[in-house]
Amino acid sequence: MLGECLDNVRGQVPLIHCITNYVTVNDVANVLLACGGSPIMADDAAEVAEITSLAAGLTINIGTLNERTIASMRIAGETSNKLGHATVLDPVGAGATKLRTKTATELVKRVRFDVIRGNISEVKTLASGSGSTKGVDAAAADAVGEGDVEATAAFAKALAGQTGAIIAVTGAIDFVADAERCFVIRNGRAEMGKITGTGCQLSAMTCAFVAANPDAKLEAAAAAVACMGLAGEIGWERMLPGDGNSTYRNRIIDAIFNMDAETLEKGARYDVL
Amino acid sequence: MLGECLDNVRGQVPLIHCITNYVTVNDVANVLLACGGSPIMADDAAEVAEITSLAAGLTINIGTLNERTIASMRIAGETSNKLGHATVLDPVGAGATKLRTKTATELVKRVRFDVIRGNISEVKTLASGSGSTKGVDAAAADAVGEGDVEATAAFAKALAGQTGAIIAVTGAIDFVADAERCFVIRNGRAEMGKITGTGCQLSAMTCAFVAANPDAKLEAAAAAVACMGLAGEIGWERMLPGDGNSTYRNRIIDAIFNMDAETLEKGARYDVL
Amino acid sequence: MLGECLDNVRGQVPLIHCITNYVTVNDVANVLLACGGSPIMADDAAEVAEITSLAAGLTINIGTLNERTIASMRIAGETSNKLGHATVLDPVGAGATKLRTKTATELVKRVRFDVIRGNISEVKTLASGSGSTKGVDAAAADAVGEGDVEATAAFAKALAGQTGAIIAVTGAIDFVADAERCFVIRNGRAEMGKITGTGCQLSAMTCAFVAANPDAKLEAAAAAVACMGLAGEIGWERMLPGDGNSTYRNRIIDAIFNMDAETLEKGARYDVL
Repeated sequence: MLGECLDNVRGQVPLIHCITNYVTVNDVANVLLACGGSPIMADDAAEVAEITSLAAGLTINIGTLNERTIASMRIAGETSNKLGHATVLDPVGAGATKLRTKTATELVKRVRFDVIRGNISEVKTLASGSGSTKGVDAAAADAVGEGDVEATAAFAKALAGQTGAIIAVTGAIDFVADAERCFVIRNGRAEMGKITGTGCQLSAMTCAFVAANPDAKLEAAAAAVACMGLAGEIGWERMLPGDGNSTYRNRIIDAIFNMDAETLEKGARYDVL
Repeated sequence: MLGECLDNVRGQVPLIHCITNYVTVNDVANVLLACGGSPIMADDAAEVAEITSLAAGLTINIGTLNERTIASMRIAGETSNKLGHATVLDPVGAGATKLRTKTATELVKRVRFDVIRGNISEVKTLASGSGSTKGVDAAAADAVGEGDVEATAAFAKALAGQTGAIIAVTGAIDFVADAERCFVIRNGRAEMGKITGTGCQLSAMTCAFVAANPDAKLEAAAAAVACMGLAGEIGWERMLPGDGNSTYRNRIIDAIFNMDAETLEKGARYDVL
Repeated sequence: MLGECLDNVRGQVPLIHCITNYVTVNDVANVLLACGGSPIMADDAAEVAEITSLAAGLTINIGTLNERTIASMRIAGETSNKLGHATVLDPVGAGATKLRTKTATELVKRVRFDVIRGNISEVKTLASGSGSTKGVDAAAADAVGEGDVEATAAFAKALAGQTGAIIAVTGAIDFVADAERCFVIRNGRAEMGKITGTGCQLSAMTCAFVAANPDAKLEAAAAAVACMGLAGEIGWERMLPGDGNSTYRNRIIDAIFNMDAETLEKGARYDVL
């Protein structure tokens, strides 16, 4: 099932409009190409509605937001909703500053997202309206361990019910939930946290998966999350002595490029709660 | 002859001012260094005239244009013309939105470009004033196959005659034309389309080649196009099992870094129509 | 001693707020992760004070400055000073345009920097108020050879005395000086100049080192400079036939990722004048 979601991306080559931060944007574009999608980045208010209209999906990532691009996010989000396109939010750093918390919460009010993907601190901030994100990483106090799985799955489901969005909380253990079911995914490696932008990449890839699988959005989002984690595992196996985080970044994108349905199907490790 | 163009870049180390998109800007800078040029990126209206004056060439790439940078593009383009510097336009996504089409066509009216490089849909948009670019990729209906070579060469020559610019239409087959001659170049690999930014990189590299070869601009532009395609072939030969588009990106820039005149001369495959 | 500085970075994981150019920002983020720090990029005036407050250090890099971000640099710099956080300036291209020279000199007047790191032309521009930087590289006339070591060390010490900042002048030979002592460091390779952004990376890494070593700032800055140079040497040893500047970029960041205190301690080559 997850493998089929990947095949649909490769078959349909969804064009994904990204309004995203300038830190990780190149990797985001290459990951979209690697998974079978096609990227287009555009953030000017004068053209985002047209770009969104051309695309099959929209990812909004607030990683380096500013007044100019926040306006564009709103326009693009509303256009995407009007057209029924796949729409994903990555609330980078929500909880770290008032601007990020406000922007993310207002976007959630104004735009109907298919998926909201963030770390646990960012997602908790969206749920409660305030938070304690440490920069762009989750706060230590929020860390999700094996003992927190049921509570976190319940939290994700509840927020999904409340927002209408699939909630993807990623970290050492990943949770992908709608109001009724939660995929608890155990792929990935801790070393992925030593690369900038794996979260941003995942959000854009999730948008491509959801765009190509409109009738199975939850499975599609779970497939994207498992695909990224599994790529982290496969990429790590190819690391040589002396390799570090920069090479690992390449290896992960390479692994997504080479991922096939069977590998994803067999390699994905998850429960559904 | 193409090899000599490369040697001139390495000998002169032309400084190339790039007003370019934030998606592929890092690769653009590294490609300029790889081919023997030197990059400088600057996009603020308050300084672009000075930066252009310091540089040997200017590349304008509208990939993530906005109101602020469009103003800078105009100023820089006019300054570059005044000083007789090499000036290149990459009309990324012209045809996809009104803003891009308008910006590109106005730039072509206002600035005398030595080279305009784009995919077939972007260049057709410039020729006709409207287009059907699918995001930043050429529309399928525009695809140039072997049966379209003569017509495309004639189209490129005609547009070159009309604009005064060398027209470089790149894709599966590449066309580099002035009003009288068209290089039809058959280097490169389809997999290059799975990397973001090979077009942006090529535009900036073309600017370096033209800046270093002012008396042979057509040959210089053709040399840059052949160099990129050949690097795509050489880079591909070095790919190992498990490598994907992220590693391929590195391999192509590496191949340009290691390109010498003899390799380029022998590896370039082209006809002149 | 230098090795201990690295261990302190890895032990404390300082969060470094970067207001930096969009050309090299991804490498800057990955280098911060590689050395043991944590990056956060944010440049909007509405949130930079909060981001700076969360962070342990601030790096201001003017590589692609504009009116909007210059305002943010001022706010962040003043906030960082108020909180006593590590504060670093990379005056990219100072001397190349009036905007850069003015911005850099005004920042130095307004903000108390712990370290100012640039090439010799940029630093001379700050010292004299005008300069002859060739784009973002040092002017040939400014090149520092073995015959200029004593004079350059004296210049760096004098400027350190005048500004209160540690002055790091990097190039073929690196100088890291406070008013009384100057580390003259001879690590690194000329080929590092063929990669975009090693200077930007070093500035951010220096900020992480200084933030984690508040009682030994000069040694910390010297450790960062030696670490980057040594990584350039280690990375080069891993280069294979056909590799070029793009792979070299990865290898250097990888070498920083794998650097340990003992390797740095043994590999650093320096005198103190």
